[in-house]
Amino acid sequence: MESNSVSPMPELAPIAEFDKTPPTPPEDTIPMDDLPPPPTVVTVANNSVEQEAETHRHYEEENEWGCGSWLEYTMVVVLASVLLLGSLALTLFWVIYYHNGFAWREDLSKQFNLHPVLMVAGFITFSGFSILLYRICRCCRRIYVKLLHTVFHALSIPCVAIGFMAVLDTHNLKRPEAIPNFYSLHSWIGLVTMGLFAIQFVVGFFSFLVLLCCEGATSAFRAALVPIHASFGLTTFMLAIAACVTGLTEKVIFTLGENYEKFSEQSIIVNTLGIVFIALGILVSYAVRIPNLRGDSMVYMDDRM
Amino acid sequence: MESNSVSPMPELAPIAEFDKTPPTPPEDTIPMDDLPPPPTVVTVANNSVEQEAETHRHYEEENEWGCGSWLEYTMVVVLASVLLLGSLALTLFWVIYYHNGFAWREDLSKQFNLHPVLMVAGFITFSGFSILLYRICRCCRRIYVKLLHTVFHALSIPCVAIGFMAVLDTHNLKRPEAIPNFYSLHSWIGLVTMGLFAIQFVVGFFSFLVLLCCEGATSAFRAALVPIHASFGLTTFMLAIAACVTGLTEKVIFTLGENYEKFSEQSIIVNTLGIVFIALGILVSYAVRIPNLRGDSMVYMDDRM
Repeated sequence: MESNSVSPMPELAPIAEFDKTPPTPPEDTIPMDDLPPPPTVVTVANNSVEQEAETHRHYEEENEWGCGSWLEYTMVVVLASVLLLGSLALTLFWVIYYHNGFAWREDLSKQFNLHPVLMVAGFITFSGFSILLYRICRCCRRIYVKLLHTVFHALSIPCVAIGFMAVLDTHNLKRPEAIPNFYSLHSWIGLVTMGLFAIQFVVGFFSFLVLLCCEGATSAFRAALVPIHASFGLTTFMLAIAACVTGLTEKVIFTLGENYEKFSEQSIIVNTLGIVFIALGILVSYAVRIPNLRGDSMVYMDDRM
Repeated sequence: MESNSVSPMPELAPIAEFDKTPPTPPEDTIPMDDLPPPPTVVTVANNSVEQEAETHRHYEEENEWGCGSWLEYTMVVVLASVLLLGSLALTLFWVIYYHNGFAWREDLSKQFNLHPVLMVAGFITFSGFSILLYRICRCCRRIYVKLLHTVFHALSIPCVAIGFMAVLDTHNLKRPEAIPNFYSLHSWIGLVTMGLFAIQFVVGFFSFLVLLCCEGATSAFRAALVPIHASFGLTTFMLAIAACVTGLTEKVIFTLGENYEKFSEQSIIVNTLGIVFIALGILVSYAVRIPNLRGDSMVYMDDRM
């Protein structure tokens, strides 16, 4: 066994993305990082004897890993970006072409159309790009990535809020009888998603931006919060996808009924949209978590999250 | 900044679960491990100077991490197990109490009832336990875990096959007119799930069991395959959950129609079942991936996967 112990990871690349020599030196007064001791190096060593000798090589390779290897993600990031925009475009097309576009209060069925479009914009497109930023902006300073992350999530809020009001209105103003709210599995999943999103936004904003005002005292707390925030963030995105596919199923059956089984144009469009959401769930979680394109057998949560 | 560089991970626990001194020494002839060079140590070091000094502490703590810390997972594992069995029980209750139980060929609507029960049994309960095994059996020898993993997935196969035949029969034998197959988003997601499951089973069986016959020559290949198999396995489980929630939505709307909005008993049961599936998706991915109950700020894929 020992003689056969060929390393599965012959090229041990350091996984932390910190630059030892960042392009712009950090201000001494207001450091921006959540994980305070740069450089944090995550090393995969096959035995303890090799460990020290290899450390230096890791440091040398660090710059390459930090900025160079993002090229390896190009395909995943480009595909995810195309699907994030494509899902919104396809939702818009579905709603405008098959459901006559938008209105507010004048026509309840057209007002309802705001719901899928705005929810997809908020929970999928903006949130998806917000998560992907940590892959796209691998060479930017972290404070800029954090601010962009916040801005994208902040843009989601009006989308989700108006999208939510649109469906509530559609239900409550329906005549001769109002439609009850929160009766379906879709609405239950959506409610949990919105709650988790709100908690994540408030906790994230407070912890990773506001608490920077007393950076030294809060660094350990913020560092401990990073993986929790990242895990719940990805969970929220997955919940949003579950809400999307159940919502699409609901809407297409309520609209087409028995005709759903006739492979109409609309049903193909809706199913394709659903598969795009599923693909996005796989791609975004892959892009965020798995840096093993270079052959590491390790999966980790990026410490810049 | 440097003076404030408090380590976010004061107790650096080793992450690899390899035992340096396993309870039973591995046979020299047929070693059972996919990751050949024991011990593989994943170390999080804050600077290169501390690294070597801390290595020894990591090795000392390894046994504690390997077998002791699984107690910390008890709650997650117990909750996941309860939900895995609970989801199957709730599906059985729903189908027997509200849809009159089972039949084969005699009554198509009763034959259809086999579909949700067997698919949940195969894709959720058996597959879920099969994945969870890597958390439950932390102290067992890996070959036993691998065999149990294979057995549980093998048990899924007849469930999925009969569950699939049940719905095909229901569609094809329907009179006066057969119902088309694969028209819905649920069926598309389900088809992708079954395809991925089949690929995973064949590749996993061949790579991690059959290739053990020439263990030395294939160890690097098998080790490289571990994270891919694990990622796609979790993806398959998530796809199965997406198939479940879309399938539930379909079935409850086709059954109840407009009455779905009246908060009937059945709709509450179905929604609860859907939320249980969602909770399982969160819990199982958490149980498999996140070992940070001890405060590590790192998320990894268990190298025993």
